[in-house]
Formats: sequence, C-alpha cells, structure tokens
Amino acid sequence: MSGFERAAVRVIAVDIFGTTVDWYGGVAAQAGEVFREAGVGLDAGVFTNEWRDMYLPAMQRVRDGEREWAYLDTLHRESLDSLLDEHGVAGAFDEAARARLVRAWHTLPAWPDAVAGLARLRRCYTVAALSNGGFALLTRLVKAAELPVDCILSAELARAYKPAAQVYRTAARLLDVEPGQMLMVACHRWDLDGARAAGLRTAFVERPREKGPRHSADRAEDTVSDLAAADFGALADLLDC
Amino acid sequence: MSGFERAAVRVIAVDIFGTTVDWYGGVAAQAGEVFREAGVGLDAGVFTNEWRDMYLPAMQRVRDGEREWAYLDTLHRESLDSLLDEHGVAGAFDEAARARLVRAWHTLPAWPDAVAGLARLRRCYTVAALSNGGFALLTRLVKAAELPVDCILSAELARAYKPAAQVYRTAARLLDVEPGQMLMVACHRWDLDGARAAGLRTAFVERPREKGPRHSADRAEDTVSDLAAADFGALADLLDC
Repeated sequence: MSGFERAAVRVIAVDIFGTTVDWYGGVAAQAGEVFREAGVGLDAGVFTNEWRDMYLPAMQRVRDGEREWAYLDTLHRESLDSLLDEHGVAGAFDEAARARLVRAWHTLPAWPDAVAGLARLRRCYTVAALSNGGFALLTRLVKAAELPVDCILSAELARAYKPAAQVYRTAARLLDVEPGQMLMVACHRWDLDGARAAGLRTAFVERPREKGPRHSADRAEDTVSDLAAADFGALADLLDC
Repeated sequence: MSGFERAAVRVIAVDIFGTTVDWYGGVAAQAGEVFREAGVGLDAGVFTNEWRDMYLPAMQRVRDGEREWAYLDTLHRESLDSLLDEHGVAGAFDEAARARLVRAWHTLPAWPDAVAGLARLRRCYTVAALSNGGFALLTRLVKAAELPVDCILSAELARAYKPAAQVYRTAARLLDVEPGQMLMVACHRWDLDGARAAGLRTAFVERPREKGPRHSADRAEDTVSDLAAADFGALADLLDC
C-alpha cells in the first residue's frame, strides 16, 4: 500500500463479471436449463468454464488489431458456436437457444456482499461500473442485480477492451478526473495490471469461487495492488466509508 | 396520442435541466451568494435568465459547425465572461468566483415530484438521463439530487448537442434499442421536436416555473408530443407504472 493516499481517490471503478456478479454460477444455471430442454447431456459447469476460457483470446485478437472491435455478445456468440461444434452438439441448438445462452451473460446474481458494500462506497465516492461488457448489457445487468452505482462506463465507450489503457483513460476523462484519482476494483490480476499501467490506483477483491469448483482464481498474494480485500464490505472498511 | 403504443417503449430518456431539476432556482440561489460576497448588486434571478438565454445560441454555433464541440462548462464559462463584461462588473470576479459560478450548474435541486416519479418509471423501464450536460457534470448532478436512473447518457457521448439527431440515436444505439422504443421526456418543445425527428417517442412534462417568475415556459398546448403530463408522477400514471 505504499504511496496510496485514500484522499486522492475520487472515483471507484468496479469490474463486473466475477468481481461483482457470479458469472459462473449464473451462466451455469441458465445453461443447465437450456441443455436439459435440448436433451443434451453436457455438464453446464464445465461448459461455462470452457466458454469463459475463450473470452480472453477473443478479446486479444481485437486488441492486436486482427479484427475490428466487436460487442462482447458477438464474441460470446462466436465462441459458443465453436464450442457447440467441438462437442458435436451443434444440431441440438437452434437460433433461439443460442440467443438465450448468449443472453445468460446479461442476468447474473450479485455476490452476497456486493450490494451493501457498493452502497457504502457510494456514500464516499462516485462509483462507476467499468467492464468489457457492452453499455446495454451492463445497464441491464446492473439493473437486474440492483447494484448501486452512479454510472455505467463500458469499454464500448472507448471502442476497446480492458486491459487496453484507453479503456481506463476514457473512463477517467468522461468523469473528469486524473487517472490517479480513480481506483479500479477487480478480482483479476490482468485487469489491475492494465489499470495500474494506465495510471490508476488498484484494489484487489478476492473471489476464490469465481470460476466454480474446478478452477482456481487469482489470489491476493500473486497480485500487485494498492489495496486488497476479501469483499466489498472489507474494501469499504479499508477506505473508512 | 394517436399511434402511441405504451408496450413498444423500452427505455425512458429524461432531460435534466428544467425537466428534472430546477436550474433557475438552483443557479440563482448560488449566484446570489457569490454576488453578495463580491459586493456586487446584480439581481441574481435576472442574471440567471440572461445567462441561460445565451446557452441555445452557443450550442447552435457548435451544431452549425462554426466551432468544435465543447463542454457545456466551457460554453457556460464563455457566456459568463461576456455577461460580466456587459454588466461592467468583470473586475469584481476572480478566477475562483467564476469557477464557482460555472459549478453552480453541477448541483441543482430536483423538482419535488422527480425522485418519486422516476423511481416509479424505473420499475417498468430502463431510465436514462439524456442531457446536453457533460458526462461528469451529469453524473455529479444526478448523484447530488439522488435521482433514480439506470444510466447516464450525455450528449457528450455523441460529441454533439440536442436537438441534433445523432444525440438521440447514439443513446438508442448504446442501449441497443430502436429509436421508436425510446421515449424522450422533456419540458422543452425544441428537445421533443429533435427527438421526434430522430424517430423517438415523446412525452412533455410541463414546468411552468422553469425560468423563474419573469419568463414564461413552453406549454403543453403549444407542443407536439405523444404524451403530456403535469409532472413525473402523472407521467407514471399515464404509463401505468
């Protein structure tokens, strides 16, 4: 925490998928329903992990300039189609079922500490959602999970994806603060590394169950950040609000 | 109301200055304080009207391409400087006093019906703030007035000003709805005319005291809109939510 001045922070930017909402539990539950209705015996939890694993490389291709910027929904749909092919079950899922699976990422449960913790942070700071999800997706997701934030700030507004510096800097510019006045909160090392490289302050929130029971998640001891907390309540304690 | 289908609306976009918050009362009160401290005998209410009257022509120059897009704060500051010159009191206001006057537009009281009415609308629709104010200004203002909205959608995101069609269309695109699925709520005829030209549905909320005691405001009978209501509560009634 050396060099971290709480008083310098004016905006708290919170990552959404994994940090604030439980994508694994939410998508696996919804995918399980769709699989049952389709009569397909895939393990929805394993499938959810496989699907999510395709997300970082898909965004990397956008960042590397190999393809134009595209909505997260579009990336999810492309990787879903490949994955269903790989599992040899493409024929069991029509357009409506695939659209429903992509939309599963739009309605995800908040972690139990998120609503109360964010409400506390919001009393002291401007709190913004900052995710790679599109603006519409995030607005819908934040509303459904009743997350108390002051504004939605999607990577879409920068036509880029985290951890590209322009995403964090566009967020700071839109809120009229210096990058150093913004604290990025995430459970992913790569997100905090990107934020720090863009000049932001960083807070790690540990979500050991982020990827479900079969995968390990990033741990505080392996992550460089100004602050580290077990959940949003503990983060609010650290920030005295 | 011919042709208006309530069920087609998915997003309600609400104008802020005048429609949701009382800019006249809020700016006049804050300007009055600054004038007293500066020992200047200007009437703060008259000054507020004069200042606001410079806003539409300033934006028009941006829309006409006579100048680059600029923050509302910048336009306010330029017109403030001219106005203080015109009144021969430029010497009485230093940089800090001028900055304070510009910031008066960042903290304005909600109309008495706004918070409860918006909360009702938000139960049925996605509610977005859509104003010519910058993203940071709007976020601050909405937070200070505790207006319940789902997201902030500034004209800044389109680098244009209402009533330019691209402002309304950018808002619809970001929320992933067709223009016809968005209902623009405002107390200004010019805003609703712009929204309708861009394909949106429109609702007029009458704010007879918008410009204070000396100026008349737009009236429902002179305005073309799908819906017209006396306040946000009456609008929620019309929309059955």
